[in-house]
Amino acid sequence: VIDVKFQPPKGTRDLISDDAVKMMMIIETVRCAFEKYGFQPLFTPAFENFELLATKGGLGEDVKDEIYYFKDKSERELGLRFDMTMSLARIAANNPQLPKPYKRYVIDKVWRYDNPQAMRWREFWQADIDVVGTKSLLADVECLAAACECLTALGFKNFYIRINSRKLMQSIFDKFLGKEKTLDAFRIVDKMDKIGLEGVKSELDNKSIPSEKILQIIKISGSNKAILEKLKKFGGEGLAELEELYRYAKMFGIEKNLKIDLSLVRGLEYYTGPVFEVYLGSAVGCGGGGRYDNLIEAVGGIQLPATGISLGLDRIFEVMKEKEMYVEKTKASVFVANAGDVVRDVVKIVCELRNSGVICQMDLMSRNLAKQFDYADKNGFDYVVVVGKEEVKKKKFKLKDMKKRTEKTLTMRQILQPLTSNECRKR
Amino acid sequence: VIDVKFQPPKGTRDLISDDAVKMMMIIETVRCAFEKYGFQPLFTPAFENFELLATKGGLGEDVKDEIYYFKDKSERELGLRFDMTMSLARIAANNPQLPKPYKRYVIDKVWRYDNPQAMRWREFWQADIDVVGTKSLLADVECLAAACECLTALGFKNFYIRINSRKLMQSIFDKFLGKEKTLDAFRIVDKMDKIGLEGVKSELDNKSIPSEKILQIIKISGSNKAILEKLKKFGGEGLAELEELYRYAKMFGIEKNLKIDLSLVRGLEYYTGPVFEVYLGSAVGCGGGGRYDNLIEAVGGIQLPATGISLGLDRIFEVMKEKEMYVEKTKASVFVANAGDVVRDVVKIVCELRNSGVICQMDLMSRNLAKQFDYADKNGFDYVVVVGKEEVKKKKFKLKDMKKRTEKTLTMRQILQPLTSNECRKR
Repeated sequence: VIDVKFQPPKGTRDLISDDAVKMMMIIETVRCAFEKYGFQPLFTPAFENFELLATKGGLGEDVKDEIYYFKDKSERELGLRFDMTMSLARIAANNPQLPKPYKRYVIDKVWRYDNPQAMRWREFWQADIDVVGTKSLLADVECLAAACECLTALGFKNFYIRINSRKLMQSIFDKFLGKEKTLDAFRIVDKMDKIGLEGVKSELDNKSIPSEKILQIIKISGSNKAILEKLKKFGGEGLAELEELYRYAKMFGIEKNLKIDLSLVRGLEYYTGPVFEVYLGSAVGCGGGGRYDNLIEAVGGIQLPATGISLGLDRIFEVMKEKEMYVEKTKASVFVANAGDVVRDVVKIVCELRNSGVICQMDLMSRNLAKQFDYADKNGFDYVVVVGKEEVKKKKFKLKDMKKRTEKTLTMRQILQPLTSNECRKR
Repeated sequence: VIDVKFQPPKGTRDLISDDAVKMMMIIETVRCAFEKYGFQPLFTPAFENFELLATKGGLGEDVKDEIYYFKDKSERELGLRFDMTMSLARIAANNPQLPKPYKRYVIDKVWRYDNPQAMRWREFWQADIDVVGTKSLLADVECLAAACECLTALGFKNFYIRINSRKLMQSIFDKFLGKEKTLDAFRIVDKMDKIGLEGVKSELDNKSIPSEKILQIIKISGSNKAILEKLKKFGGEGLAELEELYRYAKMFGIEKNLKIDLSLVRGLEYYTGPVFEVYLGSAVGCGGGGRYDNLIEAVGGIQLPATGISLGLDRIFEVMKEKEMYVEKTKASVFVANAGDVVRDVVKIVCELRNSGVICQMDLMSRNLAKQFDYADKNGFDYVVVVGKEEVKKKKFKLKDMKKRTEKTLTMRQILQPLTSNECRKR
């Protein structure tokens, strides 16, 4: 029997023990990559004024149905953020003094009132990077490269990012269909993953949109180079954009991770240029993004071009767990066992280890030695140091390697030396 | 004119640029200390079922007025968490299999519907550590020691933690007043900081609680040792608890940071033993905690003793900012300047630096060299590497130290070597 009282609210979940450690390591790996790429943190509130969240270009008109909407005790309309981009747009709009390009990262939770299903939660983690203030496609490619770096650092090998250009598709669709039908056609093509090519065809036919020409475009396939070649006859700004993107990607050495895909248009209306979708493997999406040069103006700021990408960390977490992907522990952990009546000495050693930056615990339960070893084992400690009256007198302690199941008798200095070669942070 | 649209919701705030960097460094410093002490992360949802938040012993009967309460679209009653302890209690209650002691940390936001005022927000950061499953006061002292380590690592020198024992106060008050009046007396004494000794006296008198005896106790002052001495005549379990706490504190070398204060009782009802309040300096509170041996049972679990402490990071942030306290940057940052028409080479160098773990940026705006230096300066980069056609040909680059305003001409290897001695994380 599940006691509802104990459960997290519907659509949300807890991450406990090893799961929490794994998620924290994912967060830290991603954060480290983002910082290397020169992105700075930004903290905005978990909820925003509803007016901001409802800005045209975001989730669309049904936004209230898709978010956690509520009023505070003074009847202010609020909503939990459904992404990080609207908050960033607000910050960019309200802080024109920020030096450009403004490159920010954020790794935090967002909330959507979706129907919970496999790999889909109402509360989930997003790791976002965005560059505000430049039209240069170098910025887009930096975001793509940073995303690739995150996934590589986490140990993914077969990930790929589908890319396309909204500008290109717009110009082609406009030419074929006339402007008034392009947006409808985008919305239908965006469902490709869900309804397949046949589904797209029949929906286009239903709306009297000439499906043949559309399908002819979105079916173009082959290597990136081959696709760019086939697109030459369409020419224009959009193609130039895609070609430039590809050229920069080669400089960053990530062109092998990119797949030009002309069926990719993305749901959100605010995209104006390159669009991206990230896949951990065949059909396992874990994020996306693109260029949105008009959104900051739409929320009330000056016109500022911007681009960014978002990784869904819950998907990444699930796949890493399923595939038993290794997450590197950066520091050894030590349990200092009390062989009897030596609390003072145990505390002294624990303090010494911690002062040297070592992750360290001791017995807090007055357990016997066997049970202390059991605890250390269950909790994945790398080493156990045994402290007893004899050991204290001789100033030599048993160091047990819990992985290799070996044992040595050493001085504190000999114990410390190898443990402290990889510190968390020196003070 | 402030456009409301641009502002974060009332009582919340953004942290941008340097502020965000500073807060992130505080978070990381605290996290590192917590991990050294053997605490593990835990992730729970930002909102909980209202039933949990309303559990007796937490915020009390007016909880709905003090939190962000809302219903989801299926009329489920929810609330944004007002602290981390209720969620931990839920986890402990629902996961009896967790090895004990279960030591967890969490650094995240919580929300209370308070009246916003100086140093008080409706959304604020808490850094919590708790130990579940042991009655040993070693656990309480580990929490105190970890809190001291955080504040020391952040550079605070005059911080202190007021400590007291609820058990001791309960036994003394019970004896003087009779059990039925003790809780009322606690509530009044808890207002000491706000209403002063005189205010406490008059409120006690109003409730016909013999104020003289109460005041006589809570006025006891002097060194920790002197206070313990004066308390000897009261004896009992409570005093033994305080004495033991003090003895362990000496082992950890933190007794100098503790101040026994008999006027400290803490507002939350769930405390059953030692209680703590953390101060950054005279009267600047930044957190607190204590032992709550009955809370996990109160939310529906088995009886499990627990203790913990919470640091308010917003207060810490504000004081550090006000006092211009230095936060150590762990890694150097480099801006790679493009002296003209060498994007490919710039990208190559940027990739090389990043691959070596260096925080690195390049020009994304097609700016001239002077403007690139200006950007690097404004954004606090430590170094600028200048790349031009000549430099590429000679494979030697100008490295400008932006702090010392010195310049050297070096090979990439010479540039890399000193920068990579302090890496973020090796892959």
